[in-house]
Amino acid sequence: MKTNVIDNIYNNTVTAYAISAAWELGLLERLEASEQPVNLAEFAAEQDLDSPSVEAVTRGLALAEVVHLAADRRTAVRGPQFAETWAKKGFFYWLTRGCGDLFRTMPELVRNERRTGDYVTRDYKAIGLAARDAGFSYVDPTFYKIIADRGLSVGADLGCGSGERLIKLAGRDPEFRGIGVDIAPGALALAKASVDEAGLADRLSVVHGDATRMEFRPEFADVEFVCTFMMGHDLWPREECLNSLKLIGEAFPKATDLIVCDTYRSDLAPTEQHPVFTLGFETAHAVMGQMLPSLGEWTEVLAEAGWRTADIIDFDLPPYTALMHLTREQAE
Amino acid sequence: MKTNVIDNIYNNTVTAYAISAAWELGLLERLEASEQPVNLAEFAAEQDLDSPSVEAVTRGLALAEVVHLAADRRTAVRGPQFAETWAKKGFFYWLTRGCGDLFRTMPELVRNERRTGDYVTRDYKAIGLAARDAGFSYVDPTFYKIIADRGLSVGADLGCGSGERLIKLAGRDPEFRGIGVDIAPGALALAKASVDEAGLADRLSVVHGDATRMEFRPEFADVEFVCTFMMGHDLWPREECLNSLKLIGEAFPKATDLIVCDTYRSDLAPTEQHPVFTLGFETAHAVMGQMLPSLGEWTEVLAEAGWRTADIIDFDLPPYTALMHLTREQAE
Ligand SMILES: C[S@@+](CC[C@H](N)C(=O)[O-])C[C@H]1O[C@@H](n2cnc3c(N)ncnc32)[C@H](O)[C@@H]1O
Ligand SMILES: C[S@@+](CC[C@H](N)C(=O)[O-])C[C@H]1O[C@@H](n2cnc3c(N)ncnc32)[C@H](O)[C@@H]1O
Repeated sequence: MKTNVIDNIYNNTVTAYAISAAWELGLLERLEASEQPVNLAEFAAEQDLDSPSVEAVTRGLALAEVVHLAADRRTAVRGPQFAETWAKKGFFYWLTRGCGDLFRTMPELVRNERRTGDYVTRDYKAIGLAARDAGFSYVDPTFYKIIADRGLSVGADLGCGSGERLIKLAGRDPEFRGIGVDIAPGALALAKASVDEAGLADRLSVVHGDATRMEFRPEFADVEFVCTFMMGHDLWPREECLNSLKLIGEAFPKATDLIVCDTYRSDLAPTEQHPVFTLGFETAHAVMGQMLPSLGEWTEVLAEAGWRTADIIDFDLPPYTALMHLTREQAE
Repeated sequence: MKTNVIDNIYNNTVTAYAISAAWELGLLERLEASEQPVNLAEFAAEQDLDSPSVEAVTRGLALAEVVHLAADRRTAVRGPQFAETWAKKGFFYWLTRGCGDLFRTMPELVRNERRTGDYVTRDYKAIGLAARDAGFSYVDPTFYKIIADRGLSVGADLGCGSGERLIKLAGRDPEFRGIGVDIAPGALALAKASVDEAGLADRLSVVHGDATRMEFRPEFADVEFVCTFMMGHDLWPREECLNSLKLIGEAFPKATDLIVCDTYRSDLAPTEQHPVFTLGFETAHAVMGQMLPSLGEWTEVLAEAGWRTADIIDFDLPPYTALMHLTREQAE
């Protein structure tokens, strides 16, 4: 029996499910922590997991050489694909766990009769974990550097999710004060709890708000920069985005800097090689009926809303993701 | 940006979801029917589907060369991988649709605390469609030939699912009479409706029953053969299987032939190439806590239950799937 392209696609899909499982179960972390072989039965016992299932998950990793599984299937060590898997695990988790239900039911969700109301189910906790993991290594350091270089010390994060970035900024600068805004009760609760836990409630606050209809509040008065990560595309299409940007500009009258970091439409040709994430991200948004702007469409609309492009940093990972740093004269 | 192994695994997973969607939506069938390009917008309009979503699904197919998508993304034709995809579509559908929820939630289902009661959700309608598609080309013709060669004309199908095989046998032989047995109300309803629709209610009946605890009924008295497709592993582990086989032998006293067709444990080494299906099938059963017998374990237990091996036909597709034809002297 020869393995061919289609068999390989099938097996790779099982591997993708296995990567998400191995991350959630702590197996990837265990492998990352040490070059020593992991005894699978011991790992399963320790974590109160079903041992044959852990072995099956590990087989899925082994087939793609993420790990080497011993012939007796008792121990696993990092394989040649481990480092790459570790770097990209968040994208797999986003795909099979965060959007797992969207993709499973995709054949239904494509039918017009099904596309009314909240027709898509996603796991927002999983999406949050995936986004944090994906941004961690590349996007965040760039962002912190801009804030430091510009000497900004009061900021608002729209769609703040877990609140992680504000907490990090407050940790780096004892003068820093920030406001997290989110629309989702789950995100707000998580962000509030994280701020409290970090003992930063005196400098960071978290408020409910919709980024598409921001309004001035007294606590916004001295905000120097506004940032938004991995949700800017939710403001589109164009006219809606322009309007949201205007409201944001007015709601934060003293803000001189705007940072929009988001994944944009790749416009890759069907035959071009696709990096991780892009095809999944664009397919999911097509199914959700959410248009994605290209980078050109972004800068154009930001200019029209009165923001000057100071810098655009384009990341390799997440692919087709840019941090757009914009500035304007202070309004007064 | 260079595509590497891990990016490829990711993209292949999106392709797998796309194959299941394209089959369910009738796009694969459309492509199979003709070598002409399919206009995607027209196809979407005709089927009342969301056009951008259909385009996204087609991109997923195109990336793996299942189709060629025109640069303007308006039309698609069969690509070099189409024939192989068409032959194996049922396995993808089984994986992402039938077992989609099992694999999505695999990280949870591996935890012992979650493994009580009916902890696995699967889509049995999708599994039924997948099984029918997978068996259609290879398994079924072999089976019909055995029944004809042996001159058997009264049969029982345990775990009959859609009832398709009995209906086909009745269509081939005007003397044929059969009884379908299944445990699932959904399968029973489908089988009954199909029998009625085929106008075969005078020769085929469908009854509720559990293959693990068969008991004689008057209508079983003249059954000449018993068959069971794609569910034999549910009878295991060994002692339970032996007991079920004994009860089956007694419940059908005149049956001289037993046909067990099932996918068995591959015992593939972690480093060996895996064909389509095997890894998914074995992973899903590990998660469900269902042991899978090897082919050797099967023949041994069948011998112990009093059945002589007449023939074993091992299929390439589904891989590691055998049709075991067994005989015994008539009981009286
Ligand atoms: C993909 S998450 C990203 C979270 C965080 N910014 C990060 O990068 O990790 C998107 C977040 O935006 C929030 N969100 C979506 N639409 C929003 C809106 N109109 N106004 C405010 N928040 C919104 C969601 O609730 C979610 O927490
Ligand atoms: C994978 S499907 C196969 C259906 C059909 N034999 C085919 O090959 O297309 C397995 C079938 O076995 C039935 N089944 C499972 N366990 C059973 C049991 N203990 N007794 C009777 N039927 C059972 C299920 O309800 C389902 O219809």
